[in-house]
Amino acid sequence: MRKNTFLLSSIVAGVFAAMLFESGVSAQEDPLPSWNDGPNKQAIVEFVAAVTKEGGPDFVEPGARIATFDNDGTLWTEHPIYTQLAFALDQVKAMAPDHPEWKDEEPFKSILAEDMKGVAASGKKGLTEILAVTHAGMSTAEFESTVTDWFATAKHPRFDRPYTELAYQPMLDVLNYLRANGFKTFIVSGGGIEFMRPMTDEVYGIPAEQVVGSSIRTKFEMQDGKPVIMRLAEVNFIDDKDGKPIGINQYIGKRPIASFGNSGGDREMLEWTGAGDGKRLMMLVFHDDAKREYAYGPADGQPDTHIGAFPQSLMDEANARANWHVISMKDDWKQVFPSE
Amino acid sequence: MRKNTFLLSSIVAGVFAAMLFESGVSAQEDPLPSWNDGPNKQAIVEFVAAVTKEGGPDFVEPGARIATFDNDGTLWTEHPIYTQLAFALDQVKAMAPDHPEWKDEEPFKSILAEDMKGVAASGKKGLTEILAVTHAGMSTAEFESTVTDWFATAKHPRFDRPYTELAYQPMLDVLNYLRANGFKTFIVSGGGIEFMRPMTDEVYGIPAEQVVGSSIRTKFEMQDGKPVIMRLAEVNFIDDKDGKPIGINQYIGKRPIASFGNSGGDREMLEWTGAGDGKRLMMLVFHDDAKREYAYGPADGQPDTHIGAFPQSLMDEANARANWHVISMKDDWKQVFPSE
Repeated sequence: MRKNTFLLSSIVAGVFAAMLFESGVSAQEDPLPSWNDGPNKQAIVEFVAAVTKEGGPDFVEPGARIATFDNDGTLWTEHPIYTQLAFALDQVKAMAPDHPEWKDEEPFKSILAEDMKGVAASGKKGLTEILAVTHAGMSTAEFESTVTDWFATAKHPRFDRPYTELAYQPMLDVLNYLRANGFKTFIVSGGGIEFMRPMTDEVYGIPAEQVVGSSIRTKFEMQDGKPVIMRLAEVNFIDDKDGKPIGINQYIGKRPIASFGNSGGDREMLEWTGAGDGKRLMMLVFHDDAKREYAYGPADGQPDTHIGAFPQSLMDEANARANWHVISMKDDWKQVFPSE
Repeated sequence: MRKNTFLLSSIVAGVFAAMLFESGVSAQEDPLPSWNDGPNKQAIVEFVAAVTKEGGPDFVEPGARIATFDNDGTLWTEHPIYTQLAFALDQVKAMAPDHPEWKDEEPFKSILAEDMKGVAASGKKGLTEILAVTHAGMSTAEFESTVTDWFATAKHPRFDRPYTELAYQPMLDVLNYLRANGFKTFIVSGGGIEFMRPMTDEVYGIPAEQVVGSSIRTKFEMQDGKPVIMRLAEVNFIDDKDGKPIGINQYIGKRPIASFGNSGGDREMLEWTGAGDGKRLMMLVFHDDAKREYAYGPADGQPDTHIGAFPQSLMDEANARANWHVISMKDDWKQVFPSE
């Protein structure tokens, strides 16, 4: 019996050792494998460690661990044009057979002629008309199904992959890492809320109810005895610049403790996040990687842009604040897209 | 050794039996202990069983298990006046020393004289003025702290208890039961979103980001270099009647599969919920219990009301639809408040 007991002890010890080993591996596992080591990766890991350390001076209750993310240029590619604009242009082309008059009317004429300079020349008035015909005049259910179909087939002109595959792997790492540490992650984007919602759960693991965005007005009505919500060609809310803290307050009702952006439209969101008490993390993705993605913004030799512009004044503000961090896509990210 | 083996087997068997016993007790535990047995309790239990049964014809993925609840009169007492109105009247009294002119100006004169008929006579214009001085002109942080302080001290005139103790225990049972079954629970109320948020987590277990309500416009601005959000005396959104499905679409972006209300203001929310595909549950709390709470609405001998009115046409609609259920507070609820 002594021999058997010894055998049993050996087995138990082996199992325990294996458990310890596994847990050791898990604790040392890199939570942000797509990031190169450096101060930005370190800032994220140290922030998460600090706010989740129970009894520590920076501990934050799970219910207050709110992190907000801009979408275009922060979570996925926004060049050469915003994905939602690509959708709108494709919709105009798809709808054109029913609108023979568009052959002679701007901005539709330029869209159908693939003349992007002509589209741009139509300015804000042109854009409003494009959005009115492609985003309004249908029910929310019809719009959702149109958007879903488009995401399933449309491809990015340079990368020749579905737009939904152009999320940034390092930001997916951050989303997963934060959620694994009790954070609730939200999108707070200037993009249309109902354009994003059909894909955010699949692409980012962010459910529709955690998406804040711009919206148009809607109207509840009965059609053949069935209630529908119709989309109207009137702006309801622009979730950009000062609209971001307003949208956060309106939708979430809590101040984030971490915010991620990439352009001048995100400045107020980061300021609002940073002005709260306790430890905070503010990060801006800087597009300086023309080879793997795009380069634009305030640095020598980088072209300026109208899509997701990162003004020098924002770079100055980020550099002046200790808990704001500028992420260099070129230096900080080991990998850009999931498929690499 | 045979004896030891036998002993070991007995211990193992005992542990297993205890586990089985516990799990058996747990499965038979009443998930809605404050409800009397009857068709309404049964409808809730059967609905939850159906939508959570994997592989079953009515199974709903956890992410789509959205349940929405009106607040006033559905989750807590709304008589003799809405809690938010009681707050506003108290605020007028607290602010009066700084406003000597109110002694001669309606609706403030009537409020200070405790003349509720005079307040009512000032109508919509009076109510707008009351809301403007008590709900606007301060930052969101100041308003939150005022509301929090008020909830900590104010008491209901009849029950002489904090308003936060006047949630309905049977509805707390439903909230807990749904959440234990993978539901996400939301408030969708005509009440002010920033009036409710300071108490919903503590009272209902519903965090701020799952509260949809009426709101006023806000403005982001810098004060002494610090960003603040100021509350403006302008309506932003009325989350009542057709505003409820619009608010649900705007904030949640998913159609609920279960909705709970108690008045004409909830009709469109229930219609919108019921018009989706698959199994749905729609319930209306009917206040017919003058003894334990209040009685008002369309039934013989019950007085009509302007606070949370339940019109006969809504009762007719509920009776005509198979998956709408009218909860009788008197008959269906074993207990009304948590403290009983």
